[in-house]
Amino acid sequence: MILKLLKAEGLAHHTYFIGSKGEAAVIDPRREAGDVKEILDIARDRCMRIKYILETHRNEDFVHGSPEVARLTGATIRHGSNLPFKYGEPMKEGDEVSFGGLTVRALETPGHTPESLTYVLYDTTFPDIPVAIFTGDTLFVGSTGRTDLAPGGKEANARTLYHSIHEKILPLGDTALMCPAHGAGSVCGAGMGDRDWSTLGYEKRANPHLQLSKDEFVRAKVNEKFVIPPYFRTMEEYNLNGPPPLSGRKTPRGMGLAEFEAAIRKDGTKLVDTRLPQAYGGGHIAGSYNIWLGGMAVFPGVLFNARDEIVLLPYRDQDAYTADRYLSRISYDNVPGFLCGGFEKWQNSGRPIRHMGELSVEELKAKLDKGEIALLDVREPREWAAGGIVPGARLMYVGDIEGRLKDVPRGKPIASMCSVGHRGSIGASILERSGIENAYNVLGGFTAWKHKDYPITKFPNA
Amino acid sequence: MILKLLKAEGLAHHTYFIGSKGEAAVIDPRREAGDVKEILDIARDRCMRIKYILETHRNEDFVHGSPEVARLTGATIRHGSNLPFKYGEPMKEGDEVSFGGLTVRALETPGHTPESLTYVLYDTTFPDIPVAIFTGDTLFVGSTGRTDLAPGGKEANARTLYHSIHEKILPLGDTALMCPAHGAGSVCGAGMGDRDWSTLGYEKRANPHLQLSKDEFVRAKVNEKFVIPPYFRTMEEYNLNGPPPLSGRKTPRGMGLAEFEAAIRKDGTKLVDTRLPQAYGGGHIAGSYNIWLGGMAVFPGVLFNARDEIVLLPYRDQDAYTADRYLSRISYDNVPGFLCGGFEKWQNSGRPIRHMGELSVEELKAKLDKGEIALLDVREPREWAAGGIVPGARLMYVGDIEGRLKDVPRGKPIASMCSVGHRGSIGASILERSGIENAYNVLGGFTAWKHKDYPITKFPNA
Amino acid sequence: MILKLLKAEGLAHHTYFIGSKGEAAVIDPRREAGDVKEILDIARDRCMRIKYILETHRNEDFVHGSPEVARLTGATIRHGSNLPFKYGEPMKEGDEVSFGGLTVRALETPGHTPESLTYVLYDTTFPDIPVAIFTGDTLFVGSTGRTDLAPGGKEANARTLYHSIHEKILPLGDTALMCPAHGAGSVCGAGMGDRDWSTLGYEKRANPHLQLSKDEFVRAKVNEKFVIPPYFRTMEEYNLNGPPPLSGRKTPRGMGLAEFEAAIRKDGTKLVDTRLPQAYGGGHIAGSYNIWLGGMAVFPGVLFNARDEIVLLPYRDQDAYTADRYLSRISYDNVPGFLCGGFEKWQNSGRPIRHMGELSVEELKAKLDKGEIALLDVREPREWAAGGIVPGARLMYVGDIEGRLKDVPRGKPIASMCSVGHRGSIGASILERSGIENAYNVLGGFTAWKHKDYPITKFPNA
Amino acid sequence: MILKLLKAEGLAHHTYFIGSKGEAAVIDPRREAGDVKEILDIARDRCMRIKYILETHRNEDFVHGSPEVARLTGATIRHGSNLPFKYGEPMKEGDEVSFGGLTVRALETPGHTPESLTYVLYDTTFPDIPVAIFTGDTLFVGSTGRTDLAPGGKEANARTLYHSIHEKILPLGDTALMCPAHGAGSVCGAGMGDRDWSTLGYEKRANPHLQLSKDEFVRAKVNEKFVIPPYFRTMEEYNLNGPPPLSGRKTPRGMGLAEFEAAIRKDGTKLVDTRLPQAYGGGHIAGSYNIWLGGMAVFPGVLFNARDEIVLLPYRDQDAYTADRYLSRISYDNVPGFLCGGFEKWQNSGRPIRHMGELSVEELKAKLDKGEIALLDVREPREWAAGGIVPGARLMYVGDIEGRLKDVPRGKPIASMCSVGHRGSIGASILERSGIENAYNVLGGFTAWKHKDYPITKFPNA
Repeated sequence: MILKLLKAEGLAHHTYFIGSKGEAAVIDPRREAGDVKEILDIARDRCMRIKYILETHRNEDFVHGSPEVARLTGATIRHGSNLPFKYGEPMKEGDEVSFGGLTVRALETPGHTPESLTYVLYDTTFPDIPVAIFTGDTLFVGSTGRTDLAPGGKEANARTLYHSIHEKILPLGDTALMCPAHGAGSVCGAGMGDRDWSTLGYEKRANPHLQLSKDEFVRAKVNEKFVIPPYFRTMEEYNLNGPPPLSGRKTPRGMGLAEFEAAIRKDGTKLVDTRLPQAYGGGHIAGSYNIWLGGMAVFPGVLFNARDEIVLLPYRDQDAYTADRYLSRISYDNVPGFLCGGFEKWQNSGRPIRHMGELSVEELKAKLDKGEIALLDVREPREWAAGGIVPGARLMYVGDIEGRLKDVPRGKPIASMCSVGHRGSIGASILERSGIENAYNVLGGFTAWKHKDYPITKFPNA
Repeated sequence: MILKLLKAEGLAHHTYFIGSKGEAAVIDPRREAGDVKEILDIARDRCMRIKYILETHRNEDFVHGSPEVARLTGATIRHGSNLPFKYGEPMKEGDEVSFGGLTVRALETPGHTPESLTYVLYDTTFPDIPVAIFTGDTLFVGSTGRTDLAPGGKEANARTLYHSIHEKILPLGDTALMCPAHGAGSVCGAGMGDRDWSTLGYEKRANPHLQLSKDEFVRAKVNEKFVIPPYFRTMEEYNLNGPPPLSGRKTPRGMGLAEFEAAIRKDGTKLVDTRLPQAYGGGHIAGSYNIWLGGMAVFPGVLFNARDEIVLLPYRDQDAYTADRYLSRISYDNVPGFLCGGFEKWQNSGRPIRHMGELSVEELKAKLDKGEIALLDVREPREWAAGGIVPGARLMYVGDIEGRLKDVPRGKPIASMCSVGHRGSIGASILERSGIENAYNVLGGFTAWKHKDYPITKFPNA
Repeated sequence: MILKLLKAEGLAHHTYFIGSKGEAAVIDPRREAGDVKEILDIARDRCMRIKYILETHRNEDFVHGSPEVARLTGATIRHGSNLPFKYGEPMKEGDEVSFGGLTVRALETPGHTPESLTYVLYDTTFPDIPVAIFTGDTLFVGSTGRTDLAPGGKEANARTLYHSIHEKILPLGDTALMCPAHGAGSVCGAGMGDRDWSTLGYEKRANPHLQLSKDEFVRAKVNEKFVIPPYFRTMEEYNLNGPPPLSGRKTPRGMGLAEFEAAIRKDGTKLVDTRLPQAYGGGHIAGSYNIWLGGMAVFPGVLFNARDEIVLLPYRDQDAYTADRYLSRISYDNVPGFLCGGFEKWQNSGRPIRHMGELSVEELKAKLDKGEIALLDVREPREWAAGGIVPGARLMYVGDIEGRLKDVPRGKPIASMCSVGHRGSIGASILERSGIENAYNVLGGFTAWKHKDYPITKFPNA
Repeated sequence: MILKLLKAEGLAHHTYFIGSKGEAAVIDPRREAGDVKEILDIARDRCMRIKYILETHRNEDFVHGSPEVARLTGATIRHGSNLPFKYGEPMKEGDEVSFGGLTVRALETPGHTPESLTYVLYDTTFPDIPVAIFTGDTLFVGSTGRTDLAPGGKEANARTLYHSIHEKILPLGDTALMCPAHGAGSVCGAGMGDRDWSTLGYEKRANPHLQLSKDEFVRAKVNEKFVIPPYFRTMEEYNLNGPPPLSGRKTPRGMGLAEFEAAIRKDGTKLVDTRLPQAYGGGHIAGSYNIWLGGMAVFPGVLFNARDEIVLLPYRDQDAYTADRYLSRISYDNVPGFLCGGFEKWQNSGRPIRHMGELSVEELKAKLDKGEIALLDVREPREWAAGGIVPGARLMYVGDIEGRLKDVPRGKPIASMCSVGHRGSIGASILERSGIENAYNVLGGFTAWKHKDYPITKFPNA
């Protein structure tokens, strides 16, 4: 029996491949050509036939790859029965699928979403000892799933989730390997451990969420502060009705200067500079968003619509394809191309260049101390809750800036700041795009600030 | 934290890579250039520094890669204290090493070998809950380690092993991931499950060896029948004193016909045809051993000495490098080359060809029924114990044939037979080399025989 | 400027990629997923846009990949104007395309086919000095194209070809790199050198076909004896009207025994064993064709129809995908699967096995000398013309056997023989399939026979 | 016959692999692990034995890989006889080596260096028609070799070179493929075409150097202005006596912050930031040199000594290994490590950051027009000769700045400028390191300036 974790950097999402005796199942595949190919290659290298694709739940942060894998393999898609999926077949409590001497049984474990399933894997030789459980977004290593996304309200969902975990999952005993759908860094939870997997018994003892009474748990979940970026709704719609097909999707084309310039001048086109903030600071094209490469799996979803035309400016040409892979995971499929040769091609042609001020925290502090600069804290509410730089900081999640430009402080230079400087630079680039002069990004952000032992402020109402 | 299993096909051996926060440890690395490179690449890709190399025990079936990995990384080698290793530093009961927020504690778990350790991995955040245990050859998925190799006798070793498992390992609780040094197919045990890993709790319930009382366990271990191939002693010597260095080892050279012919005519050179038996049957070079590619990790050790010159005849040129990788794992380092173009190069030059008769079990049965053929069963004693083809079969382990040629039945054709036809063909090629005419191999062997529902005989004294 | 040769083993076909300053053209791409990917990857790695796909002529031995590449890149297909292609745009004598500072001019060079073009590449800086010429099947390294395929007759075509070479190509001077569409081993010509490319000046001096007077040349071409396998007509039809689309083509599926057995029992299904003849000899499945892997680019086209269902039995599972790639080059797209685990899976299940006698030339000679065997020479007419083994051999091209079974000598064992034993084994497997007992293949064939200095016979009327 | 070009980006150097019938020769291999592996892999994939390693001359811009390849293959090294090489065997005029049906004849073609050879490749079937010539640094596509490096003076060398080309090479006729040792971008010549190879006949017509009379040629060569960076002498010494062995060379180690900080504080250690200038501009570590990744094959040789300890700060971790490969080509082997996580790791820890001003040419012009800035033109003399930005620019080759700091204009901000901004940033980083405040780099450099149609000045005496 093989059990493989296929990890998506950027998304921190986990797909699993289970196979034995020539047959296999895939759990929660993603829609990205490379991810799909990896699944097919594992099956091919071991001469295994993929019989089932099992969805733990309707995901919000990426689109399902199950229709694509099903098309290429003839496998059957199964998912929870509490949502009217337009594809695949439902699994109800206790339903089973079998392949290669293994059985997977579905447990209905709502709370994160109403149709969430936990899959329990058994070796048919020992039909009553779970080998592994696939918990989706219900139970993570060191954490539990969000309860703010499903209808019904955080509190009711938290009660449901508590019930799912304590009445359905924990009774499975200590011995099963636990395989969640996300690891540290995902937008689908907070406080996850950085181990890729765990065991149910280990979580029982070490997962802080499992040490709480029902009331404590519900209170804790109600107090969790997450943002719900607009693309979640698009993902949900796609994942209910079937995402746009992957085949036929075009990869971005390397463009010469003329073609690139025409493309970025088109109305509504988003120019995204995927270089790190320092490079953006040293020189960039006016009007570009600065979303670092690793953020391309999330922030285009936060800032743009799925059908927006996105043109890329990479640090290296090949980065454009990585960025595009990330975009394909969220079905942002309208990526005509990128500038071959990147920013240097632009610069060497004598075209105009803008600079972004990049401040160290030392420089920031000096300016703040002299009152020379305003501070925009673009982190998430749950980060604000853990402290910030100065009491007067304007708190505005990076995804909200474009809609709240009138609330941005004017009159003096403004520093956009996050935890390390990535989202800060998205924020600063948005400010610059909107016509605000003297926007700065803070390199190292709140992390560097804390390392310097500079004073920290609290935002009690954040 | 990452925990990666690096699997050696052929050996069915497991190396583990554990890493977190920029630091790493490797457990039981093998000495093979590709395996070493895989370890270095994992560290490199994640920018991790390998601080420790941990040996669970002195292995018998391959040579340690720890000196090589230590040389390339500066890591410290640690191993058990009950053998006078000429390299590395000893770990005693309770000794710990720490790296990247993780701690590994050594448990002395003798039985398979006197210095065997089980390593217990802890996340320092939860210092009393084992994350994973690395059980070496002490405890396997579905089985336990051999007790016939260490000094002291099978029975005493079995008692020691029982104690190690029940007093040291099982008290660690149910929740730890269990990571043994071998999987199904290894020569270091029998009856292993085909899952790559398990949990301690799962094994407690599902491992048949753990369901036995002490006396039952000891009796079962004493009744286990393993062969001890001669290379085990060489591996032990190498692993105690340090194996020959890998750097400087030459890979085999592609030879033209003249060079190849000169090489195989040298006194003492072993010509090994790594094609499958059917191909060997259709045509081969007189005097060649037929060891199928997958068997090259084991059977050269059974048949040859570590310093013998081994010349290869591959199905495809590239197979020669795979065969050589397998040989390098057991420090069989004297592999001057192989024939470019393989058997067809030989055949097309008009050089003489021999054929080997390949019998289906149907054909075998017909011949046996008519008394036209003798049968040599070249499997291991524990396989004989589970039944065979005909009462009159001569039982002779494939590794013993060359030393017992006088016991081989003469006077009529003889069929060499094993479980599927691989070792059978080694045996048949040895018979032919020794001048016996009319040697046959049985395609499908005992496996096919059973599928045909032909009568099965018992060898009560095997 | 880059100029890359993309070579198809098996077909011995050459595709060329020319690129400069961000733009590129591809000459004669093939329809195979790996080949297409290689083209896209070259363009991608260098950030080049493929503007043109240039066809030298309508090929007979594989299907065009130009529609596929055009679909994926937006490039324009150009080809000769003397055939009513259903896709692309015609190029007439002197027509040019330009990209990246380069110009390609078309020369009409009929003879091999009526619409054959030779493309001449110029650097626009030196507009009158050809950098390279792409001669398609008109002029090869050391040879010239066949004249037996085009309508009009060998002799008239030879005159046309002579004119094309001497009046169109040779006047281009000595200095151009010469890039033909085929190398040694192609079915599109004979006597080609094994250099991948040459210069026009070198060929003028070294190509024996260019040393002949017009009459000598025409006589030589008229005397050339080629076979015209049936798939040539299918390829021509596809290449005129557009081949079946590649996207949507399924790769073969690894099958278990039951699925495999059901597949090969279907009426009309062709079971192809792609192992080398020695392995086929040692054991095979009754009714299988034995086409060695390297022959899968040609002989399925010779023996089967494009829509026949082809099921594969590979030496290793991965070989099935190589075989399928070769099949996809000739649009043989109906390849449902292969047996996972290959012949050993079959054999180990106790299923029935057949053997094929494999003779060395020594063994063949002994049998011939005693009159114990008949000989079927399955080579091509032009090979017969160069000599054979015995005067009484029955000459029958391997592609003709199935249609001429009544002419196969009966009454004694029969040896199927070719140049080395590959086509011989195809022939022997066909004989066996047709119910002829005691068919043999000759390992090493005529090549080994000559190496032994055995007497050679002439077939004056072959 | 295969003829493969193995190209080193960065160096623009060409190694060639020639093979046929199981034997091969390599021309001018480089000492870099990846390059050596590529050679061995080509030989391995085709089952070829490398018999000869042929050096065209003692190179100045990288170290020879011939001793390494010889050690790994047993091949014989051959080189010119007019230098007392401490390894290999000399070839004199007309000496030949043969392998695989091919012959290579040496022509003595001094001028670039006294022992320079041109190798002429023949197919033994046509012993008087050259297939290809390997011209080393004697004759390039569109150019000829430098004459300023050999003893004897530019003029005498130019006469010798003219003689070598016109009396030795051109008489070989038009038809040979021409394979030079360098392509566009090399420091070993100027004005090379970007085609990887050519034919001798094409060069006769298109190479401007071959259109000149002897006197014109000598005058042109004497007027060529090249810099001779100090590492050339080290390379010459290594290449005469044998470079340091590659085996045992350590690859750089990924370091944590503490280890990195300790390493860069060591006296004499060079910290090299391999990011592009824009990123360096946005934030960098005080005291670091900014050598963009592509420049790492040359500029460490210009600025540092071979034994200097070089610590790297990469844009991405993997870039450190690319930088190290480039360094290994010039035997700069003392590269202890790099900072894992790069600049962001530094910045996020709150450590101090410096910024470099990056000017667009528009911004530069505005400042120059207002007299607010001085200009340091760090290009090479031959580039100055073709024009520059302002008459008052201080001309100082980037390799000379550290030795001429007292000549750097003080008193106002200073912009370091080259052709595109890469060397400019090296210069600006040197200025900053030397304590000059307000150093700037010019993004796009003279290339962007010209694109803007800004006025150009001449430096008649440069």
